[in-house]
Amino acid sequence: MANRREIGAAALAAAALLAARPSQALDAARPSVWMPPVRIAMLLYPGMTALDVVGPQGLLAGLAPDTLHLVARSVGPVLSDTGLSLIATTSFADCPTELDVLFVPGGDGTAAQMRDGATLAFLRDRASRARWVTSVCTGSLILGAAGLLKGYRATSHWCARDTVLPLLGAIPVDDRVVFDGNRVTAAGVSAGLDFALALAARLRGEDYARTAQLVAEYAPKPPFEAGSPAAAGPIITQRAQAILDTLVTEARKAAAPIQPPELGLGDAPPPASRED
Amino acid sequence: MANRREIGAAALAAAALLAARPSQALDAARPSVWMPPVRIAMLLYPGMTALDVVGPQGLLAGLAPDTLHLVARSVGPVLSDTGLSLIATTSFADCPTELDVLFVPGGDGTAAQMRDGATLAFLRDRASRARWVTSVCTGSLILGAAGLLKGYRATSHWCARDTVLPLLGAIPVDDRVVFDGNRVTAAGVSAGLDFALALAARLRGEDYARTAQLVAEYAPKPPFEAGSPAAAGPIITQRAQAILDTLVTEARKAAAPIQPPELGLGDAPPPASRED
Repeated sequence: MANRREIGAAALAAAALLAARPSQALDAARPSVWMPPVRIAMLLYPGMTALDVVGPQGLLAGLAPDTLHLVARSVGPVLSDTGLSLIATTSFADCPTELDVLFVPGGDGTAAQMRDGATLAFLRDRASRARWVTSVCTGSLILGAAGLLKGYRATSHWCARDTVLPLLGAIPVDDRVVFDGNRVTAAGVSAGLDFALALAARLRGEDYARTAQLVAEYAPKPPFEAGSPAAAGPIITQRAQAILDTLVTEARKAAAPIQPPELGLGDAPPPASRED
Repeated sequence: MANRREIGAAALAAAALLAARPSQALDAARPSVWMPPVRIAMLLYPGMTALDVVGPQGLLAGLAPDTLHLVARSVGPVLSDTGLSLIATTSFADCPTELDVLFVPGGDGTAAQMRDGATLAFLRDRASRARWVTSVCTGSLILGAAGLLKGYRATSHWCARDTVLPLLGAIPVDDRVVFDGNRVTAAGVSAGLDFALALAARLRGEDYARTAQLVAEYAPKPPFEAGSPAAAGPIITQRAQAILDTLVTEARKAAAPIQPPELGLGDAPPPASRED
């Protein structure tokens, strides 16, 4: 019985179809006959933005029916920055040590995580072996605070990208999704959808990504043009900055003391890309 | 201390700015000085698609800092169709009777809700007084099963729009977000973002919607063109249909017995639009 947790299985079932696929589509990666589940750990923390997590979770879940961990210091409910709680399934201690994807969301609670020793130690440890080290929104500031973006090109929510990322040794890039080696960072909140499709294509091929996109009917049609400061204009931008001011101010304070030697703790040469 | 649950408050603080706003933007609704919180109830149920809920919740939460209810038969965790649990904050019994927005998500668990007497009774009751009766994805099939879309133009996930909605007395429309009277239905999953911005504009004016869009950095840039069957092509569409087949088959079965007199239960003349 098919469902959306089994997009991978559906890909197998479609092998015969793929064999008869029109040649113009052959550039898309073909699924191998046996595809191991992808091991994913997504960090949850108080004050995260739920959409940062739930967009990618929904699009990647088909790759990891039983191997997607929602990880927090302890198992149980975690309150988001809009008052919605997600349930952490796995504690730091019980999270698998070998991961294909380590993921960090952003949110109003970012600065507290940038200062949280247990979180930073968890991220450093898993990142040292993970195939992909990833974030959405201000999650990149938490990766940066763990020393994991030093020397890497990276993005973040527009409110913090150019001001806070450099304090953490990262090179800010104004793009929706930025790949640099095995680091993948995305812009604010809704960029998680674009990120997850791009990552899914690297993990399992473009056909998986396109299938997940169609299941999610991701043919966006925003009723307004206000998704970037340039599009929104100065008045709306000023209003959004007022909402995000505490987040940015606190993140900047949290980043300021993180200079060498702290950054040096996670300071290894960028690993070569391990993408397929 | 500003945060993203207080976009409404930020709108107040920006009143002076708005007074000095360039004239070309004056078509946007100005916020009134006192804006009551919006009363929102979002249904949760086993097998819902979490993103259907979390996208709109994130964008609308600023309108309803203490008046947004995540409603289920009982309070506590509710498992989504991709294995992520959200926590219901309010039971059917404790949900306020007067609502500005009644919202129903879709998901693999749709058919079970179409047959669930308690859920349908709850929806019929709250819808009879709600200012807006809304859905994302196959949530419209649940509204339809409650008799709430008879004679209305409506949309749904592409997999069920033209095949199942008519069985429920609705007139299918192939659009991202469909307003008809006080019914607002959206296409599949990710359409919830477009829906929430369109609804937010009706509830609180375009400036609120644009601010929420900028906070969420909703400037979508999908890496592929596969968000509709036409864009994805026949092979990917066939694969997605395999994933969605059980949902559609079960929803069709659940809809088949719902003919008058069942539909007649909720069959009142469409209320005049109460939008501002």
